[in-house]
Amino acid sequence: MKIIDISMPVSHDMPVYKAREEKRPHISVQSSFSDASVYESRIDMNMHTGTHIDAPMHIFEDGGTIEKLDLSKVITRSRVLDFQNAENSISRELLETKTIEKGDFVLLKTKNSASDILEGEFVFLDKSGAEYLKEKEVSGVGIDALGIERSQPGHETHKLLLGSGIIILEGLRLDGVSEAEYLLLAAPVLFKGAEAAPARAVLIQED
Amino acid sequence: MKIIDISMPVSHDMPVYKAREEKRPHISVQSSFSDASVYESRIDMNMHTGTHIDAPMHIFEDGGTIEKLDLSKVITRSRVLDFQNAENSISRELLETKTIEKGDFVLLKTKNSASDILEGEFVFLDKSGAEYLKEKEVSGVGIDALGIERSQPGHETHKLLLGSGIIILEGLRLDGVSEAEYLLLAAPVLFKGAEAAPARAVLIQED
Repeated sequence: MKIIDISMPVSHDMPVYKAREEKRPHISVQSSFSDASVYESRIDMNMHTGTHIDAPMHIFEDGGTIEKLDLSKVITRSRVLDFQNAENSISRELLETKTIEKGDFVLLKTKNSASDILEGEFVFLDKSGAEYLKEKEVSGVGIDALGIERSQPGHETHKLLLGSGIIILEGLRLDGVSEAEYLLLAAPVLFKGAEAAPARAVLIQED
Repeated sequence: MKIIDISMPVSHDMPVYKAREEKRPHISVQSSFSDASVYESRIDMNMHTGTHIDAPMHIFEDGGTIEKLDLSKVITRSRVLDFQNAENSISRELLETKTIEKGDFVLLKTKNSASDILEGEFVFLDKSGAEYLKEKEVSGVGIDALGIERSQPGHETHKLLLGSGIIILEGLRLDGVSEAEYLLLAAPVLFKGAEAAPARAVLIQED
């Protein structure tokens, strides 16, 4: 069994959504060896930092929170799909070129994983693509961007997916990961009442 | 396959180590539907909140940080051991009554899981118990307390375990979990340079 880490390291100088300063995490020292017998640090960050799961409450006022998430939806078989050739966004037309089965947790690998565009014009999943994945009845969608969409004022992609019970996993690092099936482990930290939470996402590849 | 969540919900009113106010997490609203089209919150907390992994840097000035952790040590077979009868601490003598094999990730279930003593006189692993687990060459030790020790000024238990490459997983909830073997999933959030990090810990029980 091979364990592949697909998580983004969290630090103050990491990429953040649209380079917004308020999205930059702060790690500070709470006690150190100069004044205590143990070292302890604090984290102050937006829940949508690095690799994280969005719950429906992120986009729907009466939406479910992160602790309502069925863990079998994030500890599940998954399928990495290679869209490194997509220029701007992933559409229905592009998705139709791939094998996608009902219940798949699809992970969209784009040029984002190997470039510096995460804070800029990153590749995202457009409305037609979200509609297609809803029709295919996938269980979840992951992407190697800090947002699964970036230029749709109505948040159509989020609404289509979260409104259909489809899990959204953002902030993956898929560079070097081949198009194939894996076991995905991406259970988020159990923040009570939260609209999102960070997760350590890994893929398990059977020998 | 059955998924058993053994994580502690994180919220402002959760139990914190020795009831210290500075250890209480703060979740705040960053944007809500009253002023934005999405809801987003922030978390401000000590890294040793709820269910988390300690890295060697927590106790050793030149110790390793959380991103150096070998994930195969926290995605691994594990063994829940029932010590609900332990009054104050878990010693070598108590551990000797159980089957423990080399490479086991042992999870210590105590009366902490079903009581309100997490902020007080919780059951912990004493120095003799840590020495025994080191001799048995376990890969990790988890406990249903916010600290694996509480009344040893020299932090002997942390030093013996982390000094031997044994993983420490704190803040578990093991109420209702039977003494048996499981697959443990407890990969911590990838905080760069940190001495600890929260994790969503779950057990997988094969059918």
